[in-house]
Amino acid sequence: MNLYDVSVPVFTKMLDNLAHILERAEAWAKEAGKTDEEMLQAKLAPDMFPLVRQVQIASDNAKSISARLAGGEPPKMEDTEATFAELIERTQKTVAYLKTLDRAKFEGAEIRQIPFPYVPDTHLLGQESLLESYLPNFFFHVTTAYDILRSQGVPLGKADFIGALPLKPNTK
Amino acid sequence: MNLYDVSVPVFTKMLDNLAHILERAEAWAKEAGKTDEEMLQAKLAPDMFPLVRQVQIASDNAKSISARLAGGEPPKMEDTEATFAELIERTQKTVAYLKTLDRAKFEGAEIRQIPFPYVPDTHLLGQESLLESYLPNFFFHVTTAYDILRSQGVPLGKADFIGALPLKPNTK
Repeated sequence: MNLYDVSVPVFTKMLDNLAHILERAEAWAKEAGKTDEEMLQAKLAPDMFPLVRQVQIASDNAKSISARLAGGEPPKMEDTEATFAELIERTQKTVAYLKTLDRAKFEGAEIRQIPFPYVPDTHLLGQESLLESYLPNFFFHVTTAYDILRSQGVPLGKADFIGALPLKPNTK
Repeated sequence: MNLYDVSVPVFTKMLDNLAHILERAEAWAKEAGKTDEEMLQAKLAPDMFPLVRQVQIASDNAKSISARLAGGEPPKMEDTEATFAELIERTQKTVAYLKTLDRAKFEGAEIRQIPFPYVPDTHLLGQESLLESYLPNFFFHVTTAYDILRSQGVPLGKADFIGALPLKPNTK
């Protein structure tokens, strides 16, 4: 096991689930007569980020740490999404990028220095950065996107959040 | 790196952060004249679990998968919490249990068969179970606890969710 296993496949699966959640929300909003604008600006508290930012930040977390653990630079994405279709495309572009990363490049990433963007001239080691900062942040923003949609009335369940699982029958 | 590193320290840190968030919420509720009962029953949507269940399920996720990856059985906890103080104690008891687990017992846990509780007679392998089911679920419930408190007006920020980070100064 290396840090690839705890980053790229985890992010990929959760972003696929998020795309599916956004598709369900888009269809529901159309039925309910709500505009994309209204939905993308929905939030849980006045000083929290709206749905659109939750999805953008989840994408940023996934591509930033994955790129850096592999020793590269993340692609810039412009944060101009204004519709469900564009937000879904953002998650898909992020997944497409993650799929270009080579697992072998993650060897030794545990101790690679990863810049910490919020305090100038500081860093964390790769394993710390993933497990204490980027992964919790990523899940925070995917969950909060889901929570915003639920609070708006979109009918979603835990299975939409978790996605399909590779269940195996027990042998006697 | 083995699955211990991706479970016990991650859960421990996030449960410590959750205890701190609950302490802040308790103090805020007292000031705002809200009862513990009212706060523990707060939810984001009529058919979502209230705060008290979010915390209990986060605890269950953390202790269940950690115990099973180590080849043991998780301790039962009774889900009788009715105050902030009792919920904080629940997170602390969970952390105390996690600290008893021996990292060496997690060797080979990647392919250990972990029962999948929602479909009878099925299992996932250890790595799948942690990374696709328990870890996402754990973060879902910790984040949703935070989101419920934010939606109630408790002044929290991302730093409360993430906790302290072992930042290191860059060398020139």
